[in-house]
Amino acid sequence: MVRVGIVGGTGYTGVELLRLLAQHPHVEISTITSRSEAELPVAQLFPSLRGYIDLKFSDPESAPLSACDVVFFATPHGVAMEQARVLLDAGVKVIDLAADFRLKDPAEFERWYKTPHTCKDLLSEAVYGLPEVNREAIRAARLIGLPGCYPTSVQLGLLPVLEHGGLVDTTSLIADCKSGVSGAGRKAELGILLSEASDSFKAYSVPGHRHWPEITQGLRAIAASAGKAQGANDLRITFVPHLTPMIRGIHSTLYARVLSHAQGFDFQRLFEERFAPEPFVDVLPAGSHPETRSVRASNFVRIAIHRPPESDLLVILVVEDNLVKGASGQAVQCMNIMYGLPETAGLTHVPVMP
Amino acid sequence: MVRVGIVGGTGYTGVELLRLLAQHPHVEISTITSRSEAELPVAQLFPSLRGYIDLKFSDPESAPLSACDVVFFATPHGVAMEQARVLLDAGVKVIDLAADFRLKDPAEFERWYKTPHTCKDLLSEAVYGLPEVNREAIRAARLIGLPGCYPTSVQLGLLPVLEHGGLVDTTSLIADCKSGVSGAGRKAELGILLSEASDSFKAYSVPGHRHWPEITQGLRAIAASAGKAQGANDLRITFVPHLTPMIRGIHSTLYARVLSHAQGFDFQRLFEERFAPEPFVDVLPAGSHPETRSVRASNFVRIAIHRPPESDLLVILVVEDNLVKGASGQAVQCMNIMYGLPETAGLTHVPVMP
Amino acid sequence: MVRVGIVGGTGYTGVELLRLLAQHPHVEISTITSRSEAELPVAQLFPSLRGYIDLKFSDPESAPLSACDVVFFATPHGVAMEQARVLLDAGVKVIDLAADFRLKDPAEFERWYKTPHTCKDLLSEAVYGLPEVNREAIRAARLIGLPGCYPTSVQLGLLPVLEHGGLVDTTSLIADCKSGVSGAGRKAELGILLSEASDSFKAYSVPGHRHWPEITQGLRAIAASAGKAQGANDLRITFVPHLTPMIRGIHSTLYARVLSHAQGFDFQRLFEERFAPEPFVDVLPAGSHPETRSVRASNFVRIAIHRPPESDLLVILVVEDNLVKGASGQAVQCMNIMYGLPETAGLTHVPVMP
Amino acid sequence: MVRVGIVGGTGYTGVELLRLLAQHPHVEISTITSRSEAELPVAQLFPSLRGYIDLKFSDPESAPLSACDVVFFATPHGVAMEQARVLLDAGVKVIDLAADFRLKDPAEFERWYKTPHTCKDLLSEAVYGLPEVNREAIRAARLIGLPGCYPTSVQLGLLPVLEHGGLVDTTSLIADCKSGVSGAGRKAELGILLSEASDSFKAYSVPGHRHWPEITQGLRAIAASAGKAQGANDLRITFVPHLTPMIRGIHSTLYARVLSHAQGFDFQRLFEERFAPEPFVDVLPAGSHPETRSVRASNFVRIAIHRPPESDLLVILVVEDNLVKGASGQAVQCMNIMYGLPETAGLTHVPVMP
Repeated sequence: MVRVGIVGGTGYTGVELLRLLAQHPHVEISTITSRSEAELPVAQLFPSLRGYIDLKFSDPESAPLSACDVVFFATPHGVAMEQARVLLDAGVKVIDLAADFRLKDPAEFERWYKTPHTCKDLLSEAVYGLPEVNREAIRAARLIGLPGCYPTSVQLGLLPVLEHGGLVDTTSLIADCKSGVSGAGRKAELGILLSEASDSFKAYSVPGHRHWPEITQGLRAIAASAGKAQGANDLRITFVPHLTPMIRGIHSTLYARVLSHAQGFDFQRLFEERFAPEPFVDVLPAGSHPETRSVRASNFVRIAIHRPPESDLLVILVVEDNLVKGASGQAVQCMNIMYGLPETAGLTHVPVMP
Repeated sequence: MVRVGIVGGTGYTGVELLRLLAQHPHVEISTITSRSEAELPVAQLFPSLRGYIDLKFSDPESAPLSACDVVFFATPHGVAMEQARVLLDAGVKVIDLAADFRLKDPAEFERWYKTPHTCKDLLSEAVYGLPEVNREAIRAARLIGLPGCYPTSVQLGLLPVLEHGGLVDTTSLIADCKSGVSGAGRKAELGILLSEASDSFKAYSVPGHRHWPEITQGLRAIAASAGKAQGANDLRITFVPHLTPMIRGIHSTLYARVLSHAQGFDFQRLFEERFAPEPFVDVLPAGSHPETRSVRASNFVRIAIHRPPESDLLVILVVEDNLVKGASGQAVQCMNIMYGLPETAGLTHVPVMP
Repeated sequence: MVRVGIVGGTGYTGVELLRLLAQHPHVEISTITSRSEAELPVAQLFPSLRGYIDLKFSDPESAPLSACDVVFFATPHGVAMEQARVLLDAGVKVIDLAADFRLKDPAEFERWYKTPHTCKDLLSEAVYGLPEVNREAIRAARLIGLPGCYPTSVQLGLLPVLEHGGLVDTTSLIADCKSGVSGAGRKAELGILLSEASDSFKAYSVPGHRHWPEITQGLRAIAASAGKAQGANDLRITFVPHLTPMIRGIHSTLYARVLSHAQGFDFQRLFEERFAPEPFVDVLPAGSHPETRSVRASNFVRIAIHRPPESDLLVILVVEDNLVKGASGQAVQCMNIMYGLPETAGLTHVPVMP
Repeated sequence: MVRVGIVGGTGYTGVELLRLLAQHPHVEISTITSRSEAELPVAQLFPSLRGYIDLKFSDPESAPLSACDVVFFATPHGVAMEQARVLLDAGVKVIDLAADFRLKDPAEFERWYKTPHTCKDLLSEAVYGLPEVNREAIRAARLIGLPGCYPTSVQLGLLPVLEHGGLVDTTSLIADCKSGVSGAGRKAELGILLSEASDSFKAYSVPGHRHWPEITQGLRAIAASAGKAQGANDLRITFVPHLTPMIRGIHSTLYARVLSHAQGFDFQRLFEERFAPEPFVDVLPAGSHPETRSVRASNFVRIAIHRPPESDLLVILVVEDNLVKGASGQAVQCMNIMYGLPETAGLTHVPVMP
């Protein structure tokens, strides 16, 4: 059994980790920390966990994290980078669900997160936890920087095209993304009140969202690793996130201009072949329109591709559950890979519909 | 492995049966019928089942139902009573999720469902599938009439009080119940459109709802079996259902007048002791307010009891997922009991929150 | 033109006052205060008001409130009682949408609101602003304590029965009420986040809600004023509020036991006759089920009454928009009465459906 | 007073026309037809209209439509083209809210609506009812083909850019649009049930939506009328509509590539100046993100423009209420223009927020 610790168990990614890990066949949850809720039984805060989680929240100062095999940070940005070094030195692996180890360039981190990066030396060791791209590196990793929810959907949607290369104009990509409100976290903020965010729709952060540099970095890395290193740095993507009145789910609508010589290319086949071995990426039949609810509470991503009429665009539709494949499920998937467990262990939930 | 057939696989109770049974460790799904969708792959209608259900819908005329061990009817009212006799004769057990075998008095059925009952002879054999009340009868049953969604919550909420007897005025009970819209089924009807039913709330069927005679019958049976036969027929309950703008969930608020001599009675303890052995009924600590989402997509019922200030009322709050404990989960629970399987087999899902 | 000031313009009752008053034919909005948003243009915080409200929020210290004819307090509890005396002395009328002047007994206020009442001398002068009950007193009032959202619906629903007297058992009333989330205000609190409160339903404050003493006081006053003074103090009501996943709307389901001699009484006619002259109370035809959306964004209350089968209960269904008739609309209605304006001035909006 | 008839009063655009016209100062509603609901009081079907509309639905065969000044068709496609000729000959003006008179080329109509066009001779006379583009033609028109909900938002969003010309690459426009569910109409269809469409998000009709040829026609007409006739036919737009879990509202996110020589162009000023005289188009300050709720139940369109970082794209955000500016409100606006009434008559509602 893998002994697991969770730092920051009161947010949505924390409680979702608990939902997934409570029934994971190879995991024992050792400790869950929360500064604000220390000593409170976890199932008192989250009655959905009654009968599944008997632990109390531990104070982060005294929690026996070093006795764990792996520690998940389901914390705000800035926490994991303070503690990762000590844990790694104690032989504990670390999976950070926040942004501390996503961006390779600390200057970029500091520009977007408005705080100094205090653990720059580990940035080069940290592996970006997107299994479909980095499975082998994850297997060997001690430290995972887990992708953000939007970046997961955008990178998976563009992956086959960028890996193949030579198909689309990579200098003019567009990601028009729509997220449920849980993506904003379990925080007392006006804008995500039911009375503010339901029965309404809006774009936000068009002048610049923190996931944009992460998406760009990821897409360039994919292009580069596919031997397109020369052009990779010219890759440009415009990212427009929107808030949708629902709890879970991200729908990314991706637009890429197909190059003239590739107009007849069989993109459907490319996607089907690329993702055939992937346990959690499902390419829908041509002509499909995936709904976010078709992956609700599961680790699946579903993708459909379209060539609209009289258009040189490739339109890629991607849905994921932002709390599962976009966060906690992907974290568990990485852990499974790191410990040589079946990659789908603890992640076999059938999506909840309706 | 129990070979299972499902008649009527295109409604919400049907697809929910598929979600639950697809991962049931002791079940093999043999056939799923749908007249309207015959030959269509199930997972094409319900993409959430891609990778879990490889069957196509079968035409009900030709489906190999007699080769099943048990057949679930997830059909509109009136279908199971046409086919139950043939299946039972072929040695197949039958679990009807509709109303055909709920009411013991065929005249009551005909009054409320406006159609003749064509299988009256099986009514006395049929067992009302509420495990917390009828576990032993279910174990021996060939034919189950599964409780309705509202009746499950109301009966479980009043069970300890009625079994004990002498605590409340059973002639003046009130059930003020609120249901999510999926309770109305997957039917093309104006009143349950998102644009009609969301961001609004209403009572309906106050002059008489089909679940009212079922609730009354069930509560009287509980009172009678507890040796309160004499007074059982005087039991009266007023039932007011409401439509709530959410997908899943029932919240029943039950009111019972505590008799003067029982004003000091420890109801909290009564409930805790009564339900301690029940795997799916969770009595919350005194003072709690259960939320429907705390049981979302799970087979749990959660109950909290209150004695409001300056009131002789006992107020019982009950939440369930109407599609799980209120329908398909309870059906699987009955099947587990009938086949001597662990009662929780295939029903161990952690509720999905948020 | 009536010169109006609004203290606390950033909450939902504040912005709703602005929506209603911006087009009121006899009103000029002079000043709107907000400590936190002082100097911000109102329409910048609430883009829905662009083109309708050109004012900036004023600092409450320096706002020219004394130059107003009437000041609305759309503030948290405790603010109006600090400022009412000064304004009244300056000849300004005061309408408090919070609870400071609702409860006649300051001890009750202090018990439920956990803060000393600092303006007890004005309590006896303050008029409870429910026009259907207190129209003449409102006409002459300088100071209005506006009813809460729940109390408005409960009192209007029981008004004809209590005024008539001798029809129902007033010692065992029940109010099972359901409110949209905007009733909780525009506050950054976890429990009313979209991700927490949508797609779920729960009761809350069953052990005691602040509106319960107000409801009891109001119902007793109605009974007493109808010459039922002797029995009025025996009136008891059990109040169970619930949170419903929608923005606006309250649905109150009221239960009253009809006395034996009144079983044949024509309640439908009683209600229709009582409310015939009321511009904002609409009694639906017998057998109706009002929806909250049928009054959305309007000042109407709609009521339907039922006598369920085999029950001695009278069931009264009441819907209102909690932000209009339950708050800001009722405040404007009171102002219209106080200034001799047509009672419906500024309140003629057709409900928004769907 | 303008005597108004409404054909098809039971859908959402019909009931919204009633909401708007019931309080229009210059209108008298003469007749409302519905084949299915003939003889039913309108306010019985739509209780929100109680006290505002006293008419019954008339049978369309016998309704006195010829006695009206103007008749609105709030019907499915194909109805207005059957009756327009007779009404026009009787001197009645016609405003069709459906698609019969939108597309100038009957072959296009037949291709997209799968039905023969039976009134081709009136197509050239029909005026496309987008006041911001065609105000003078509307003033003189007898027959209006009202724009669709999506086309209104897309055309208004691109109007200043296309009229100016030479700023963006018009061969590669993108409209990523999100609509509330009421846009699908008041029809009993599975896909728009609350249980299907809430808490989920999807794209639909990517291979071709009926509004796409209308958008293309409209944008080309704008470009052509601005003296860009030569290039107008090269204009290409990719249109991807999405279904959002809310009742009302459309959010269109428009992408246009800014030509190299126009990279420094002041688009904010262009939009502000172009729409300054328009009563219903509101250009937000630079950096804004309009929410659909900021126009809920009103005739406003709000627009914000962005130049995302490291991108040659102009991103235009447009919100409208699909039932008001996207349908019935725009119809009333056209009527006001046709009859020389103030353009905002009956359309001055403050948006409902929250």
